[in-house]
Amino acid sequence: MNTVGTIFRVSLFGESHGPAVGVVIDGCPAGLPFWREELMADLSRRKGLLPGTTARRETDEPEIISGIINDRTTGAPLVLCTRNNDFRPGDYEQFTSIPRPGHADFTAGYKYKGFSDMRGGGHFSGRLTWGIVAAGYFARKILSPAIISATLVEAGGEKDTTAAIARAMETNDTVGGVVECVVKNVPKGIGEPSFMSVEAALGMIAFGIPAVNGVEFGAGFASSRSYGSMHNDPFIDARGKTSTNNAGGINGGITNGNDLIIRVSVKPAASTGVPQKTFDTARGEMADLEITGRHDACIARRIPVILESAVAIGLADLLMIDRGINGPRDR
Amino acid sequence: MNTVGTIFRVSLFGESHGPAVGVVIDGCPAGLPFWREELMADLSRRKGLLPGTTARRETDEPEIISGIINDRTTGAPLVLCTRNNDFRPGDYEQFTSIPRPGHADFTAGYKYKGFSDMRGGGHFSGRLTWGIVAAGYFARKILSPAIISATLVEAGGEKDTTAAIARAMETNDTVGGVVECVVKNVPKGIGEPSFMSVEAALGMIAFGIPAVNGVEFGAGFASSRSYGSMHNDPFIDARGKTSTNNAGGINGGITNGNDLIIRVSVKPAASTGVPQKTFDTARGEMADLEITGRHDACIARRIPVILESAVAIGLADLLMIDRGINGPRDR
Amino acid sequence: MNTVGTIFRVSLFGESHGPAVGVVIDGCPAGLPFWREELMADLSRRKGLLPGTTARRETDEPEIISGIINDRTTGAPLVLCTRNNDFRPGDYEQFTSIPRPGHADFTAGYKYKGFSDMRGGGHFSGRLTWGIVAAGYFARKILSPAIISATLVEAGGEKDTTAAIARAMETNDTVGGVVECVVKNVPKGIGEPSFMSVEAALGMIAFGIPAVNGVEFGAGFASSRSYGSMHNDPFIDARGKTSTNNAGGINGGITNGNDLIIRVSVKPAASTGVPQKTFDTARGEMADLEITGRHDACIARRIPVILESAVAIGLADLLMIDRGINGPRDR
Amino acid sequence: MNTVGTIFRVSLFGESHGPAVGVVIDGCPAGLPFWREELMADLSRRKGLLPGTTARRETDEPEIISGIINDRTTGAPLVLCTRNNDFRPGDYEQFTSIPRPGHADFTAGYKYKGFSDMRGGGHFSGRLTWGIVAAGYFARKILSPAIISATLVEAGGEKDTTAAIARAMETNDTVGGVVECVVKNVPKGIGEPSFMSVEAALGMIAFGIPAVNGVEFGAGFASSRSYGSMHNDPFIDARGKTSTNNAGGINGGITNGNDLIIRVSVKPAASTGVPQKTFDTARGEMADLEITGRHDACIARRIPVILESAVAIGLADLLMIDRGINGPRDR
Repeated sequence: MNTVGTIFRVSLFGESHGPAVGVVIDGCPAGLPFWREELMADLSRRKGLLPGTTARRETDEPEIISGIINDRTTGAPLVLCTRNNDFRPGDYEQFTSIPRPGHADFTAGYKYKGFSDMRGGGHFSGRLTWGIVAAGYFARKILSPAIISATLVEAGGEKDTTAAIARAMETNDTVGGVVECVVKNVPKGIGEPSFMSVEAALGMIAFGIPAVNGVEFGAGFASSRSYGSMHNDPFIDARGKTSTNNAGGINGGITNGNDLIIRVSVKPAASTGVPQKTFDTARGEMADLEITGRHDACIARRIPVILESAVAIGLADLLMIDRGINGPRDR
Repeated sequence: MNTVGTIFRVSLFGESHGPAVGVVIDGCPAGLPFWREELMADLSRRKGLLPGTTARRETDEPEIISGIINDRTTGAPLVLCTRNNDFRPGDYEQFTSIPRPGHADFTAGYKYKGFSDMRGGGHFSGRLTWGIVAAGYFARKILSPAIISATLVEAGGEKDTTAAIARAMETNDTVGGVVECVVKNVPKGIGEPSFMSVEAALGMIAFGIPAVNGVEFGAGFASSRSYGSMHNDPFIDARGKTSTNNAGGINGGITNGNDLIIRVSVKPAASTGVPQKTFDTARGEMADLEITGRHDACIARRIPVILESAVAIGLADLLMIDRGINGPRDR
Repeated sequence: MNTVGTIFRVSLFGESHGPAVGVVIDGCPAGLPFWREELMADLSRRKGLLPGTTARRETDEPEIISGIINDRTTGAPLVLCTRNNDFRPGDYEQFTSIPRPGHADFTAGYKYKGFSDMRGGGHFSGRLTWGIVAAGYFARKILSPAIISATLVEAGGEKDTTAAIARAMETNDTVGGVVECVVKNVPKGIGEPSFMSVEAALGMIAFGIPAVNGVEFGAGFASSRSYGSMHNDPFIDARGKTSTNNAGGINGGITNGNDLIIRVSVKPAASTGVPQKTFDTARGEMADLEITGRHDACIARRIPVILESAVAIGLADLLMIDRGINGPRDR
Repeated sequence: MNTVGTIFRVSLFGESHGPAVGVVIDGCPAGLPFWREELMADLSRRKGLLPGTTARRETDEPEIISGIINDRTTGAPLVLCTRNNDFRPGDYEQFTSIPRPGHADFTAGYKYKGFSDMRGGGHFSGRLTWGIVAAGYFARKILSPAIISATLVEAGGEKDTTAAIARAMETNDTVGGVVECVVKNVPKGIGEPSFMSVEAALGMIAFGIPAVNGVEFGAGFASSRSYGSMHNDPFIDARGKTSTNNAGGINGGITNGNDLIIRVSVKPAASTGVPQKTFDTARGEMADLEITGRHDACIARRIPVILESAVAIGLADLLMIDRGINGPRDR
């Protein structure tokens, strides 16, 4: 169930310490231009290398397996992957008797009966988001001239995200954050009824990003504290422009042409350096757990380009449902 | 795209002022008991008839079209619908030159080129949630002995929801709210990777409920203001019990057996009785708009049983992906 | 799993002796004209009332549940059904201890643990094809100006189908047949790779018609006896016209603009009036079985309009994958 | 649309002369054993190297990208591919002005607007069947103890297939054939209604094999020439055993436990060495076309292991729909 999309179908694969992670994109129109440097720029944003992100140094260089020739998509499935090189087996281990709090150790161990590859988080690793970013690259081309941009708007509850991250680093701890994504020039009239509304489609993909545990559109949870007379966005022209945008550019699950706004909550990374007490299943008693190795103080820092990509993937699919793989995409 | 689910597939149909609204449930196991009174109890909760809900009086009586014989499911697609009787054509109109703020009038008019049936909100009406509740009835049977219950925990930003709703009614306005759903005895180990994680699967369905514009699991957005050392839930026994439950019963997208917690933001109903200014597309200028007819002061009041049903539908599907239509469901 | 299609999604429901049988069509473009008489004409062809078809007299009158207003599709899910009236409970029975050869009695009893409604074949009845024909009506509109027509080209191995059917009737037996469907003015360039090729997509739907046990395209099985030099269809103009059409209008799974040709094998109806010997599971020994009631001597006679509809459904979906729900459909 | 399956989902990728061809298998249970030699044995059968198959010499060696550790599946998506090494660019060319009869040149050129990679047939190449065989390897493990075996039962209309192939080779021509697949110990009670019947599910996959243009089950087209009294298979015990097997082990789209029988028609390869006349789109007139390079005299020879794999994929998916990814598979 690693696939999302009806027409523009994106499938993630790979494990953190396996040979590679990557993505299959099926249903991509033929003829889209591919510039390696452009994709590398997106991938670099994901990698971070900012204060508060870890030191794992992968080149993240994309390898093209299929679907591109002469720097254009061919219409056949696109497969891109990147090799995993820089992992230190000592940092992580296979299942131990102490499942780490906040990680998939316990649940994956139970579900996959001990067969899953949990080194470095395995298939549950944030490294899988490489494929989301790679797919987002092509989705953006399909959505052009839409402009999609996301930023970390809050960390540890503060707008001054740097201060919050610094404080987490000082205590060897991790901190959560909020990332907001805005889409300008969004195609108007996309989004299908019920479970394929813009919110449902984008919500599903956004929740597919590890560590995302909340998603809201427009005013979102703030609107639960508001009144209809204040929340409604009055139209001010015949083309659907509104004076406010509490709806985040969506009415009835369909884009109205105003900026699309989505915000996600990113939980603090489970791999905190602060010592924890948790259950040792072998000894049958509580135990001390100290997580070593390199870890992000604020994984939310990496999320903007991933969220942009997730949004692009969802919107590209909705656009193609409306207008087809080979239909015109401007309207 | 009115269908959700991989195995347990739920499809909504109908329009507010058309002949009927209803639901198709495909992939439902054979032999589930059906008690009309039990289903009516769920449907009555949706209808509300509480202070702050409207006076539209439909019997909501279910008509069984297929899939049940001798009060048991047959394994063939279940189709249930309910007739629309009590609509007053005068209350609503087909498209006018003044698209109502916060409604689908503008976007549906654009997308469906004027052909959609917008009387009473048409296919975008909250009336479509009848089908979610009907499907939820069967989903709960599949999930038994799980217990799913939701409540309105906040309206207008207040825990005293009655006061907030009363205030909205006084001013002829509408107010938003927050609904929280908790699942006890949830099957352990369900949820698939990536885009079919518990969060992604339930998020998609929850966002398919009209007026829901935010979804969060466990601590949700509050976790974005938290630290890893505080947010992680320590395990306290070998079966996965945790001492806190910030993760809302989910690790790595898979249920860990602790209570599953999901909360949704419900925007204030767009049909406020407060006069609004918005654009008149015929006259090409701003106009006064007054919405008459009966409307809910707080649609969030109706959401608990709908959210319970949405959660049940999503979990039943994840359970059946794991264990099949005819496989054992206890583990 | 009663649904087929990616964009134009058709779901069948109902049981032979339940309240109704019908169809949901999701993803249908808004604005398609609906003329009841036109649909009735298609449905009448399915009913037959020809020599060799049974005397069950249903009006087959369609009831519209949703998705049509003012004789146009609204873009919301279309639901149409027809009531079951004329069944005589005495003719058929629920499961007995003697599963009928060639019927689903044994397999459905096993799979659905005795809960399926087997009266008149239940969900396995040919009556379910009503929904295929109803969906085909709208699919044809989408495909216009394509012309789809099918005929019974063989019965009992003879081109003179009437003679073969007469012979079957004389002996109170049933006989199989071959139905061929030709599509003229088929949209060029539709069909996706691999498992959504024209052959795969249409094959899946055609095999969804009860009693169809073989499907072939163009020369089909005859090509297995042929040579490449004879089988290849030379192009004779720049628009793809070929001088022969052994490929049945398909190259690489994509329509080439020549007539699309599909043929299906229809087995003789299992409900033969000839006495049979089969196993009695209660007595644990072989028993005599005589099937009474009204039955078709040649169900293949009813298949042409059903096959046309199945083909239309599949092609409409492929067209919409290529060009969208709201994209242009002529090219 | 290169994906098939509901739970056990198989996606093909690659182009004949691109870097690699391969397969993604999502929804595969964790813990299945993987023996490289065993898979290589299947892959070798596909390669053929028999009289009448071409001399392209690829090692076909599988590269594991993800989903296997310590020779066991992990439950995460399996990705396997094989590099393309032995292609001679001179043999084939990109689009020319003379689309080859029977190939996808014309249709792919039209559909993908000249962007598809047509070297060696590109994504339409029979080389893509490598991925079907690789996926079939795992599907068989899921179906164990079912035994699936296929043979070339006819070539050029003759049971003595060698003679027919020899004759085709003598004249530098190609010849078609029929491949029959039989499954013993098939799980009983699998197959879903309508469009996911055993016939529909397997038919879709079988038609996804390049060159397959006909599919039939049990007596298939022969049954169209038969009578109900002869075609019905009498039961002879309480477990569903029948004395004849004209139904090919399927009643009502559900397996009845008798041998499953499917037969496919394989057209003669389009790349015949016999000179052809076809249209030159640049010159606007008919032209002589001679296809050089290495080509199979009878591609049907390679089909048995591919058909076995296709059948295994389809049955594994149906089994998992019935009993889940992690449910019991014996019954």
